[in-house]
Formats: sequence, structure tokens, C-alpha cells
Amino acid sequence: MANSVSGDSVVDRVVRVIAAFPEGVSVLQLSELADRAQLPLTTAHRLVRQLAQHGLLETSAGGSVRLGLRLWELVNRNSPTLALRQAAMPFMEDIQHVLNQNVNLAVLDGWEALFVERLSRRGSVANRAQIAGRLAVHVSSAGLALMSFQPRSVQAAYLEQFTDPAGKVTPEDLRALLTEAAHQGYAQLAGVIDPDTWGIAVPVLDGKKRAVAALGVVVPLREVRLQALVPALQTAARGIARRLGDSSTSASFHSSESL
Amino acid sequence: MANSVSGDSVVDRVVRVIAAFPEGVSVLQLSELADRAQLPLTTAHRLVRQLAQHGLLETSAGGSVRLGLRLWELVNRNSPTLALRQAAMPFMEDIQHVLNQNVNLAVLDGWEALFVERLSRRGSVANRAQIAGRLAVHVSSAGLALMSFQPRSVQAAYLEQFTDPAGKVTPEDLRALLTEAAHQGYAQLAGVIDPDTWGIAVPVLDGKKRAVAALGVVVPLREVRLQALVPALQTAARGIARRLGDSSTSASFHSSESL
Repeated sequence: MANSVSGDSVVDRVVRVIAAFPEGVSVLQLSELADRAQLPLTTAHRLVRQLAQHGLLETSAGGSVRLGLRLWELVNRNSPTLALRQAAMPFMEDIQHVLNQNVNLAVLDGWEALFVERLSRRGSVANRAQIAGRLAVHVSSAGLALMSFQPRSVQAAYLEQFTDPAGKVTPEDLRALLTEAAHQGYAQLAGVIDPDTWGIAVPVLDGKKRAVAALGVVVPLREVRLQALVPALQTAARGIARRLGDSSTSASFHSSESL
Repeated sequence: MANSVSGDSVVDRVVRVIAAFPEGVSVLQLSELADRAQLPLTTAHRLVRQLAQHGLLETSAGGSVRLGLRLWELVNRNSPTLALRQAAMPFMEDIQHVLNQNVNLAVLDGWEALFVERLSRRGSVANRAQIAGRLAVHVSSAGLALMSFQPRSVQAAYLEQFTDPAGKVTPEDLRALLTEAAHQGYAQLAGVIDPDTWGIAVPVLDGKKRAVAALGVVVPLREVRLQALVPALQTAARGIARRLGDSSTSASFHSSESL
């Protein structure tokens, strides 16, 4: 494997190019891509050309670069989240239908909740085309629901390294939140993006009572009725877990342990 | 760039590894992955290890390999289909709601319709978690709707190379189908997967009357009511086109011309 003078391999550089697009930015000029990938312009240009030949990137005459339709296809036809999303979607539609709320599905990846599916309440302008967002565990009900049903060793490692960039939440606060969520079987938290909304999430548990996913809703504060929302979410989560248990791929979502 | 003895670059080999997973197969044993990627086992092993370090692949103790959650995230948070899908989703929900039919959205990629979004009729067991399928132009109403609104040069190139593997459709048949679809403003065709269903698709047109996408439904034969379906689809397609026109990224879906 050829290494550059700085010691990184071609594979490293390919990954840096693909990862250079910030969330929500689908087009970059080549020079900006090179900057973000920390590559010399000539190297970036050569890599982009090679990746574009295979359709993993697409280039336009003006020098702009975007991720390619072929890459999107390769990843989505064999999506690592497919089994989970297929198991969850009918139950998410039920929640959307019965509660008329935004519904989301997340997995734990590192110390963050990665949202792998989303359904918007009917009539909402937002729609589910945009997925793959992340929220830190301590600022999302999904993250808390996921973390509160992890093995003790994972929780300990998480709390050990935790510092709140906003300086508001202490590890002790967080430990109490996790204990409460584990005890109640759900997590709730004020909305991060919109403080007038409230997130409520329940874990989807495997046979060992570990959370393989979190199913959640985001609800306007005035509509929070825990006695209605939580049992509906928990019922749906059990349905998802049962369908996942029938498939052989459920083990792939014990993600935090394999990181 | 380091080339192997066979002349392919590291980038080529990375692409072969990522592309080695056949549609619907999310897990491969390393040896099978090496076979499919046409790489020596040691090369495959090294590449997989490197890609796994970056989260683009995930490996398990048993030697199985799958696409990584990180790759899924990178591609989906900046999906090349995002602008189109965001523009289309509310209208697809309308069709699903009003007609209670499976709705799909496709773009032309090479000589195939690539399905980038799907909504299942309510109560249907199938769900939309699985996307990124392909159908040849001549066997899908979406493909015909897309091709019938391409520039003449693209249509000519398509018909020039066309041969039907099944030996049923001649280039002349196909030319007639395309002319008819262009004249009528929609395409219809018996279902490929289920012959008791019928596909009906209309083009989403840009300012030059070129199809940037196709919006379609798959309908049980007994429920085909063209006088109801086609105007609803055409109305929705106009709405999608208008929303796409408002965004600056619509030009990216003139895919067949940029290939």
C-alpha cells in the first residue's frame, strides 16, 4: 500500500475525500474539498477523478464535486440499517398514524445517537428524506434510552469520558438520568433544536435486555401525555424487537460494544 | 498511486470491495468478498481492515464483513438524491393518501431506472426501507417515462445499443412505446415482478421539458383506472418540478447526459 510522505495510505485519503462533505452540504468546489480533506490540490484532483470514474463521486464542468448516485445506490441497496428499518417501519407508521407525531429511530454509535429513520407527522412540512443525523447521548431522549440499556462497562466508559461542552450537565446528573430511564423504561428530555418540544424515547431491547435501537417521538410541549405516548411506544418497540429476533441480522446493532 | 501487478490502482480495489456486496446481501465472508472483488485474500484482508478502521466496513469475529454504519451515514447525510426526494416526498404522500397505492420515484442512470424513494400503500406488508433498486428502461413504466423525455441524442444512443435479453422486444417496439409515452405524457406497462400488477409513471419535467425523474404507481390490474391515476400523478409531478425549480440543485438529475 503506497503511503504519502505524511504517512497516510491511499485508503485513508479516499476516506477523507468521501467524509469531507459536511452534513447538509452536498456540493463542494474541488479546492474546498481538498482543504477539508487536508490533501494537496493535485492529490485531491487525482483521487476525485478516479472515484468519479467509478461513479462514487460526480463532477461538473464548473469544478464542483458531489457524492455519486452509484455510491448512494451501493450503500442503500445493502444498507447496514436495512434489517432494523424494515422491522421498525410498520410500527413507526402505526405510531405516526395513531399519535400523529414525528417518529424517529436511532442506534447508538460511539457516544451519539445516529438517527436511521424518521417519519413526520402528517401535514408537517418537514419530511423524512433527510436522515443520518446525530445527537450526543446526553442531549437526546433517544441517546439516553439507548445508553440506559447498555452493559455496565459501556455506561462506565461513557460516564468516565463525559464532559458537557455547555458546562451544564455533570457526570452525576447524567448517571441519575440514566438510572431513572433504566428504571422507568423510557427517557424524556426537552428538545435541543426547539425547546418548546419534548423528546420521549423507549429502547428496543434484545434477548439480553440491551438496547439495539431507540424508538422516539418529538412532541410539542402542550401535547405531552406520557400516559398515552409511553405505552404506545413500548408496545411498538416490543413489536420491532420481535420482528428483529426473527431475522438473523439483529446482532449487528449491538453497535456500542463493537466500537 | 500504487498500482498492483494487474494494473489496477488502490482506488479501483477499494471500489471493488465496496461494490462486492450483491443487492440484498448485506454480509459476506471475507473469502467470498475477496472472490467477488477479484482480489487475493491477503489484499482483501488488508483493505477490509483499513476500511473498517474508518468505519466504512464492519467486521465480526467470525470473519464476516458488512458495509459500515459510518459509510451509510456519510452517504445519506449528503445524499445526492436528497433535493429530489425532499421535493417529492410531500407529493408522494399525497398520492399514497388519495389513491392508496404504492408510489415510487426513479431517476435515469445509464439505461436503467434507479428507484430512489418508495412509499407503500397503507396496510401493505412491504415497506419503504428498501430502496435503490434498478429496472431496465424497457421493462419499467418509470424507465419508459424517463427515456421518452430525454434528448433525441440520448434516445438514439439507447435504441442503438438495445437488445432484449428475453428476445421479446425489438428496438422498433421500443421506439413505438417511447413515442407513445411522449405523446400521452405517461407510460404504462405490465408488472415485471408481479404480472397481475400494472405500472404507470409520469415524468417530472424541467424547464426544457426533459425528465429529471419519474413518479409512478404500481397498481393491481383490477384497480387500473387511468382516468383517475394519470391526472393525479401529473399534478403531483408538476408540484415536484416546481419545488425542484426553486432549489439550485435540480440540474444534477440530468444523469443520463453526464454519464
